[in-house]
Amino acid sequence: MSEAVTVGERPTEARLMNMVFPDHTNHLGTLFGGQALAWMDMASFIVASRYARTTVVTARSEQVDFNQPIHKGDLVEVIARLVKVGRSSMNVEVEVITENLLTGERKLCTRGRFVMIALDPLGQPTPVPQLPGAD
Amino acid sequence: MSEAVTVGERPTEARLMNMVFPDHTNHLGTLFGGQALAWMDMASFIVASRYARTTVVTARSEQVDFNQPIHKGDLVEVIARLVKVGRSSMNVEVEVITENLLTGERKLCTRGRFVMIALDPLGQPTPVPQLPGAD
Amino acid sequence: MSEAVTVGERPTEARLMNMVFPDHTNHLGTLFGGQALAWMDMASFIVASRYARTTVVTARSEQVDFNQPIHKGDLVEVIARLVKVGRSSMNVEVEVITENLLTGERKLCTRGRFVMIALDPLGQPTPVPQLPGAD
Amino acid sequence: MSEAVTVGERPTEARLMNMVFPDHTNHLGTLFGGQALAWMDMASFIVASRYARTTVVTARSEQVDFNQPIHKGDLVEVIARLVKVGRSSMNVEVEVITENLLTGERKLCTRGRFVMIALDPLGQPTPVPQLPGAD
Amino acid sequence: MSEAVTVGERPTEARLMNMVFPDHTNHLGTLFGGQALAWMDMASFIVASRYARTTVVTARSEQVDFNQPIHKGDLVEVIARLVKVGRSSMNVEVEVITENLLTGERKLCTRGRFVMIALDPLGQPTPVPQLPGAD
Amino acid sequence: MSEAVTVGERPTEARLMNMVFPDHTNHLGTLFGGQALAWMDMASFIVASRYARTTVVTARSEQVDFNQPIHKGDLVEVIARLVKVGRSSMNVEVEVITENLLTGERKLCTRGRFVMIALDPLGQPTPVPQLPGAD
Repeated sequence: MSEAVTVGERPTEARLMNMVFPDHTNHLGTLFGGQALAWMDMASFIVASRYARTTVVTARSEQVDFNQPIHKGDLVEVIARLVKVGRSSMNVEVEVITENLLTGERKLCTRGRFVMIALDPLGQPTPVPQLPGAD
Repeated sequence: MSEAVTVGERPTEARLMNMVFPDHTNHLGTLFGGQALAWMDMASFIVASRYARTTVVTARSEQVDFNQPIHKGDLVEVIARLVKVGRSSMNVEVEVITENLLTGERKLCTRGRFVMIALDPLGQPTPVPQLPGAD
Repeated sequence: MSEAVTVGERPTEARLMNMVFPDHTNHLGTLFGGQALAWMDMASFIVASRYARTTVVTARSEQVDFNQPIHKGDLVEVIARLVKVGRSSMNVEVEVITENLLTGERKLCTRGRFVMIALDPLGQPTPVPQLPGAD
Repeated sequence: MSEAVTVGERPTEARLMNMVFPDHTNHLGTLFGGQALAWMDMASFIVASRYARTTVVTARSEQVDFNQPIHKGDLVEVIARLVKVGRSSMNVEVEVITENLLTGERKLCTRGRFVMIALDPLGQPTPVPQLPGAD
Repeated sequence: MSEAVTVGERPTEARLMNMVFPDHTNHLGTLFGGQALAWMDMASFIVASRYARTTVVTARSEQVDFNQPIHKGDLVEVIARLVKVGRSSMNVEVEVITENLLTGERKLCTRGRFVMIALDPLGQPTPVPQLPGAD
Repeated sequence: MSEAVTVGERPTEARLMNMVFPDHTNHLGTLFGGQALAWMDMASFIVASRYARTTVVTARSEQVDFNQPIHKGDLVEVIARLVKVGRSSMNVEVEVITENLLTGERKLCTRGRFVMIALDPLGQPTPVPQLPGAD
């Protein structure tokens, strides 16, 4: 299957999907808030890593609003988009959308922003390319 | 954020992304095969559920070939595509592609096929719509 | 041991301790940021629940700064303190402190703030007592 | 307890037992298919490793049929048997049997076959002994 | 596969096998003691449940000695044997044996005893059959 | 935040708090005994490590009594206290207390004792300081 080897682009969006299973829920049967934050951080990490193609760390999570409870059995889609790039920092906007698998109804439940930093092999901040169209 | 409520389509593809972290690996530091199978089954479940909009169960996994080891720190993308629909069964083709985050190099590591069944609320097989363009 | 049954106070601080084990780390061997956020949310939940003695949900996480990497084998103490109470909202300040078990050296690695809401049995916001000394 | 040190044989069967706990189930309270596949792969890995006494990897899972749902609270026994040996490949037949702990009733729920490969220290396929009685 | 349905006996031994993977280890790469205790309790629960064919709870763990460290990549076999039966209590002796998969060398690493209680549907202790040959 | 760096004392008590979530429970919805043992061992490890400031291993768990079931949604506090120190061994008494978050009612559910050993960098037992006031 070596023909499948390709070299990736620098995508500016990452989409993660997860089913809400019992081990993601609290004692009330809804998604534990900390689990949502963990998925959002993961999506931010992936989009920033693919854009920078360096080691990336989370420097800051900014305001994250939890507007709707998420239930066991929901499909959760976490969408992270790179919205702003500094010298070595990347601002990622993250949305958590649930989908009821039976009806297809989708709701935006949580939204937040994460700041990621690109590091060089010595662990020092390193420049990242500017976003196309940003000047 | 109620304006974000939409009613989903019947997509025929699902893409899951995961970072390979230490709790996904065996003692050799590579992705445990059972973890890959679990992710493939999950992707099949999601694509079949979104297509059928019913309860769905796994009836069978068909031949799954593990061609390349997957390493800790790789990004894994699991792509499940609905390729054939019977009366109540759905055939899903699943590929596991790794991406080296630093180089962007992608490799097709594993490929397999799963058969999912749509069930009605009583747990009996129930018809699913035919694939568009299939006749 | 029924003599051990007591009725708890309304403490305004919660302290959680965890060892950083391999299943909390990313592929670099440091604590995954999402895991830190999950522990911080958990500590906020506990302190707010014990204060309100009602069901509590996370409404918002505010700016969380990750200042220092946390390593496998570190002891992590997460300290959540109730710092402000609204009608039904509770502001919790959370610090993540690591301790090197061999040297005893402690470092403040992460700091953030969470807003929790007290709910009545119908899921509506419900008043919480004011903090003593706050007027 | 040093008298307990013995040198193992080359057994051709491995039996794993697990209780189906909430963190193994999907949102319907039944065993998640991916978890069953992970346990089957693990049993195959153990029986092939003990037989070959080398590093072993999963090369392929062949048709796995899921005939009966498995419920939370069931005891699951996964039985892997080495049924055929090639030069460096080992064919393992795996059955998943549930036991209702209160009645003792056992059911064969899932059956499949895995192909494992023995590797030398450089990661190249290496010969394994032939099965006794196979010629 | 309905011919596979059988009604189980009352076995007095249970054997569990696990590979020691990174998510079972502490920061030193050896099996976390609490994980060993959890596996021992699970094996005790299974053997007592199969013998009593009632709900079973752990009443007490007695002295458990940890004699040898267990390493990542070891195969662990946990063997629980019912050694004494009271009116509604069951004494289970549990051994934890490791096996080096490459050499086949087995070592008895940990040994302990658990006391399990059979409960009726109301949660009250209920009699269990006497061990054959015990009088 | 470097002003937050302090050098820790040798505390003789450790307190861990956890919410009982679905992935800690058995199929009956109560805390799995093995999970309680794992938390008790962890608390013992932390208090002994902070006291000895060396590598520490669990040598023995002594009688642990499970007096009350612990339910999903309970807050669990595990309190480990160093009660006796030998040349290189440390005796830790551990209590597991539950707190009903709505009523504040606390109950002592489980009590046990663990023996931990301090090791030098070569893995040999190494002396620990005597407890203050013990002579």
